[in-house]
Amino acid sequence: MSEKSPTAILLLSCKDRKGLVSRISNFIFERGGNILDLDEHVDPVEQMFFIRVSWSMQNFSVPLDELEEAFTPLAKEFKASWSISKQGVKHRAAIFVSKYDHCIQEILWRNSMEEFQIEIPLIISNHSDLESLAAHYKIPFHFFPINQENKFIQEAKELELLNTNQIDTIILARYMQILSPQFVEKYPNKIINIHHSFLPAFIGGKPYNQAYDRGVKIIGATSHYVTKELDDGPIIEQDIIRITHKDSVKDLIRKGRDLERRVLAQALYYHTQRRILVNGKKTIIFE
Amino acid sequence: MSEKSPTAILLLSCKDRKGLVSRISNFIFERGGNILDLDEHVDPVEQMFFIRVSWSMQNFSVPLDELEEAFTPLAKEFKASWSISKQGVKHRAAIFVSKYDHCIQEILWRNSMEEFQIEIPLIISNHSDLESLAAHYKIPFHFFPINQENKFIQEAKELELLNTNQIDTIILARYMQILSPQFVEKYPNKIINIHHSFLPAFIGGKPYNQAYDRGVKIIGATSHYVTKELDDGPIIEQDIIRITHKDSVKDLIRKGRDLERRVLAQALYYHTQRRILVNGKKTIIFE
Amino acid sequence: MSEKSPTAILLLSCKDRKGLVSRISNFIFERGGNILDLDEHVDPVEQMFFIRVSWSMQNFSVPLDELEEAFTPLAKEFKASWSISKQGVKHRAAIFVSKYDHCIQEILWRNSMEEFQIEIPLIISNHSDLESLAAHYKIPFHFFPINQENKFIQEAKELELLNTNQIDTIILARYMQILSPQFVEKYPNKIINIHHSFLPAFIGGKPYNQAYDRGVKIIGATSHYVTKELDDGPIIEQDIIRITHKDSVKDLIRKGRDLERRVLAQALYYHTQRRILVNGKKTIIFE
Amino acid sequence: MSEKSPTAILLLSCKDRKGLVSRISNFIFERGGNILDLDEHVDPVEQMFFIRVSWSMQNFSVPLDELEEAFTPLAKEFKASWSISKQGVKHRAAIFVSKYDHCIQEILWRNSMEEFQIEIPLIISNHSDLESLAAHYKIPFHFFPINQENKFIQEAKELELLNTNQIDTIILARYMQILSPQFVEKYPNKIINIHHSFLPAFIGGKPYNQAYDRGVKIIGATSHYVTKELDDGPIIEQDIIRITHKDSVKDLIRKGRDLERRVLAQALYYHTQRRILVNGKKTIIFE
Repeated sequence: MSEKSPTAILLLSCKDRKGLVSRISNFIFERGGNILDLDEHVDPVEQMFFIRVSWSMQNFSVPLDELEEAFTPLAKEFKASWSISKQGVKHRAAIFVSKYDHCIQEILWRNSMEEFQIEIPLIISNHSDLESLAAHYKIPFHFFPINQENKFIQEAKELELLNTNQIDTIILARYMQILSPQFVEKYPNKIINIHHSFLPAFIGGKPYNQAYDRGVKIIGATSHYVTKELDDGPIIEQDIIRITHKDSVKDLIRKGRDLERRVLAQALYYHTQRRILVNGKKTIIFE
Repeated sequence: MSEKSPTAILLLSCKDRKGLVSRISNFIFERGGNILDLDEHVDPVEQMFFIRVSWSMQNFSVPLDELEEAFTPLAKEFKASWSISKQGVKHRAAIFVSKYDHCIQEILWRNSMEEFQIEIPLIISNHSDLESLAAHYKIPFHFFPINQENKFIQEAKELELLNTNQIDTIILARYMQILSPQFVEKYPNKIINIHHSFLPAFIGGKPYNQAYDRGVKIIGATSHYVTKELDDGPIIEQDIIRITHKDSVKDLIRKGRDLERRVLAQALYYHTQRRILVNGKKTIIFE
Repeated sequence: MSEKSPTAILLLSCKDRKGLVSRISNFIFERGGNILDLDEHVDPVEQMFFIRVSWSMQNFSVPLDELEEAFTPLAKEFKASWSISKQGVKHRAAIFVSKYDHCIQEILWRNSMEEFQIEIPLIISNHSDLESLAAHYKIPFHFFPINQENKFIQEAKELELLNTNQIDTIILARYMQILSPQFVEKYPNKIINIHHSFLPAFIGGKPYNQAYDRGVKIIGATSHYVTKELDDGPIIEQDIIRITHKDSVKDLIRKGRDLERRVLAQALYYHTQRRILVNGKKTIIFE
Repeated sequence: MSEKSPTAILLLSCKDRKGLVSRISNFIFERGGNILDLDEHVDPVEQMFFIRVSWSMQNFSVPLDELEEAFTPLAKEFKASWSISKQGVKHRAAIFVSKYDHCIQEILWRNSMEEFQIEIPLIISNHSDLESLAAHYKIPFHFFPINQENKFIQEAKELELLNTNQIDTIILARYMQILSPQFVEKYPNKIINIHHSFLPAFIGGKPYNQAYDRGVKIIGATSHYVTKELDDGPIIEQDIIRITHKDSVKDLIRKGRDLERRVLAQALYYHTQRRILVNGKKTIIFE
């Protein structure tokens, strides 16, 4: 979808009831907005209402910085979870990495192609290996070695850094450390991870070895929001690739790299385009 | 999407302008309808507006048989192309076949599983081969052998038969005759064909032989609405399958059968679910 | 691969050592055979050798019914697991079903198209629902209702029936009963099951419900040889299909049906074409 | 397939006849080689024989630099096209680019991951845009602006440069110039191109615009060896991606980039692994 600026995007979920689309579209129409794209979904099991609507702000009677305030009464009435964002206002994302560079390379390259709407003010790593890559892209690199003893302290420093930099999105680009629950709860549905298996198969470590041992004919990768439970957060995107008996674990790793890159990039694309709403343990993706 | 009856579905396209979603959703809300699913698209190049909206008719103040009349003023104001259908009112489809049975088998079997919302009052063929299959499914089978000389007369008889049976959808399930332009224009965007190639590659006859000779690594199938121009109508669905140097033409035909079945069934699914709007030579598919 | 008769196919596995291909191809060459297709694989981890070779028996100096005897000395020397089959000699397969008909429909239809090299002398079911389908295809239908008490006796009767009919392949076409270990060990790597998930995810019952609850974006199906451990046998084929948040459990079941049909058919195709060797918990598939 | 060094790979094609596998495997066995992987194919239409065989050179009685000479008598007897290469001896590849960087980025990155067995001694371009990228990877960058008048002279200089650098593989990574027939014939089946469509659909310029106008539901990319006829050489690899009515031409270009990268990389992988034999207008890919 090509959406010319200035464009506003509303993401909203609430208990379903009659008139929601009508009220929301009237709100936009009455202020002179033209809807560019509207996608609405009702979960018939849980009777929940989900909507993403984008509209042109050209000649809109409310200035963009007053838009949230203007919409608040309606949102309160609906008891909604919601956010309004302006197309073109970029997410501020931090990338967490360890030693593997394929995922971060992919994201940095795609960002240079302007596929995402993000700024990347910093990279955090528990290893120093990728410092020169960060330097090449002129992004500050912060090295936080982590062990059992210092984990609490290091995470506290990381959080302070993220806070200072007004980070709203964290990308775990094959970051080989488990974030503490205390860390995770600071960024609900804002930490995107890539797991190198087709979840829920092969949770935890060394999924390619697990896949090789089981003799599967297809391997997968899964990008999800991080929750306190390991590899159990709401799934954003999954994809797969065929393997054969000829493939060694090394081949699986090679083929899987492509998958991981693609799946993480797609998840991040949805996230930065404000195309995701979380519904309990699941995601609504407005493609 | 599971939509419980009674449900109404509006498909509408018109020149884009402000307030369309608002006006349409108000129309539904004011009469007591609850929107179940709404998907809207604006073609930014042609400035055209497309919408599919379904709503629950429970407690709706307008009875279903007066719904079209009630909506007509709005539609006229928008100068729209539109249709309203009731979930559960089935399409009446005729299947045209020749000798191959895989596509018709697939459709008849899926219909017996209630995947489509169609009734099939008749099967028309230019060969008698599949008469017993029709008998098995207890569907009247009409044999119209066609040659250069009798084509005009036979098609006239077919049209009369279709008319008598109030047919609104024609499925060409590997029907190996080209319908005349006069026939086609009677059923605009209502004749669904399956072509056994990835259009626009390999138009016309023997596409599997063409694919074999060219040495492609992937073959495809395409389902489209029939227009006067051969294999050139709006594409509804396409899919592909991998082949290798080991595959003979016979293997391509075998693998292609699976593809043709699947692609035609998917196209018919969209059609019977009222999920397709035609935009010139293209389709909008509300998935 | 199109292979004209009369053709012999050797499937062989043994500990790897030098000269195996040479000795086997010499055996064929010296007797006047022309190799049509040879595929060989060495498992570098376990140092095992796997080969499938097919050759034209035209002018072959050993008659087909003496071929096994002629090859035995070589096989003994290699301490190999092996089988020789004649292209065109059909497998004798029994289909086990319960109530769902999509998988058995698919197999019977494909067999009528001569995609498989199988004869189907009987269908066994723990329900009577599909008796008329069997009648339509003129295949004897045997009804063995099974409960906790009679399982042992019923299975004994089934085994006798299979034995009488010289069955060498058993197809579990969504058979909703777990075969006893005693039954399974009679047909090692000869019982083909279809499980309606992407194994090892969602083992056991109601995988579509499990998938729905987890919020996956892709569902799968897996065909495997049955072993004593539930859903744990060597995987033959897997495939997947995308789903979205719009899909209900009912939609998953509908989409999954297509997948199950396709995956089981592909596994059976490999099996009947003698393209599978089992390597512990894994399969070698000579595509 | 992981093949440990030192390993030799034979690629050979000739008219089919009895005993070819036997003679070739005996050649290897008699000299003490152990076959690691053998794949053979007979084209039943053209009666042609194709083989790829790799074997361990450990304890082989012929030194690697005398291997070609040793095999020559057999090859002559078969009137074969053939080549022997040593696993680990790298191809020497030149990359031709214009302005788009996605394909060359992908290849350079993958090569840094050692996915290919190539050295890249030089990059040639008709634009200067990607000079700094070449510098980053420390690869000499040669700028040859080309127009109608200077084409012959510039290509002559390029050929000299390729010759000096002993280049055996040319990668056209979205090189937006058509090579002259005189240039092409110097590198038969050694120039790998990526075309951004599913050939033979949308030959020539602006295939994404063509795809958009036609309203296809899937776009593709094709990697092929370059011949004198535009976009008509033997196809090595193809892949596809789904698009919808929501996708603008810009979206097609974005989605297509991923496809182009992947397809070109896969083709190059096959090429550098010596897994390709050309059969007239087609390729045999030993996967």
